[in-house]
Amino acid sequence: MQSINEIEELVKLISKLPGLGPKSAKRIVLKLINNRDELIKPLANTLAQVYKNVVRCNLCGTLKSNSTACSNCEDTKNKFTKICVVEDIADQWSIENSNIFQGYFHILGGTISSVGQKKEDLLINSLVERVKKDNIDEVILATSATVEGQTTAFYIQDSLKKTYVKVTKLAQGLPVGGEIENLDDGTLFSAFKNRTGIKSNSD
Amino acid sequence: MQSINEIEELVKLISKLPGLGPKSAKRIVLKLINNRDELIKPLANTLAQVYKNVVRCNLCGTLKSNSTACSNCEDTKNKFTKICVVEDIADQWSIENSNIFQGYFHILGGTISSVGQKKEDLLINSLVERVKKDNIDEVILATSATVEGQTTAFYIQDSLKKTYVKVTKLAQGLPVGGEIENLDDGTLFSAFKNRTGIKSNSD
Repeated sequence: MQSINEIEELVKLISKLPGLGPKSAKRIVLKLINNRDELIKPLANTLAQVYKNVVRCNLCGTLKSNSTACSNCEDTKNKFTKICVVEDIADQWSIENSNIFQGYFHILGGTISSVGQKKEDLLINSLVERVKKDNIDEVILATSATVEGQTTAFYIQDSLKKTYVKVTKLAQGLPVGGEIENLDDGTLFSAFKNRTGIKSNSD
Repeated sequence: MQSINEIEELVKLISKLPGLGPKSAKRIVLKLINNRDELIKPLANTLAQVYKNVVRCNLCGTLKSNSTACSNCEDTKNKFTKICVVEDIADQWSIENSNIFQGYFHILGGTISSVGQKKEDLLINSLVERVKKDNIDEVILATSATVEGQTTAFYIQDSLKKTYVKVTKLAQGLPVGGEIENLDDGTLFSAFKNRTGIKSNSD
């Protein structure tokens, strides 16, 4: 490798990003260097902007611009009555992309049993506050179908016991395109347990 | 996706990097945001440093620090007598990593027939000057074994005709680990043509 410190440093930093190793980092650095004005400059500026301007909302956990109100929980234009609770911002993005849900989001910031994550680190208290304060009639728990996700969902359900809000969780069953022979026992169990009627005895 | 402009911009920029698409860019952005001080800040700073300090050397084409002499062609500590000519900085890095070559590098910046690349864009004239000026006894053409790479090598060989330097090019043949049944005809042809003696008739 070139003995230029900045380049070495850049390769080292980029190798830390998910899905990238030293080889792909070098390829990226070369691309950057060959596109100084189209890539390095805007990337450095945008990163500085994000560092300066983008923060996590204390109330709902989503990303918001430092200078403006949170477009999720402090949205005054749209008055929603549902809150969808997810683990991470990535989950919010996926659900937003699917256009399947119209309402507020609440990003916990992890799950209860994940390593080093305590209940207190998750935005659960502020969820209870939001439910009490705003005119919410349903909390949809969209945590992962993992042990940690379901434990977290159970804990939240418990925390919301004293409010009068309806709490639901996402259905479990066959994923679209799922072939029976390839499904795990847990999914099959859920699919059987939650089977839906399509014709009654009397039809 | 979140309606924060900086985040969208960052995802867009990162998607442009080689090997990355919108999905992996989003994953990287999330990792960045979750590691503001360990990743975003140093990355923004290093990119700005690289933009400010790292330039291509006009003479040999490698990357050099703006403030110092080129560690490749203006290296006064080591006096080499060989120049290895490569297409890109990535090639230089590969050869440096292999520790197989001790000498100067000369980075052309592409090949002759590649799209939009003209002879004048490549650092060929400065190579001839280096050969004349410095005490060089061999120029090793390490361009790719592609039509473009070989055309470029031929053109350089022609440009060096009037100097008294020895010009060599890398051997062509079986790559290490290459299985005969999987090799293309061109490689097989080279391997046969350049076959080396291991025992003579009289042994």
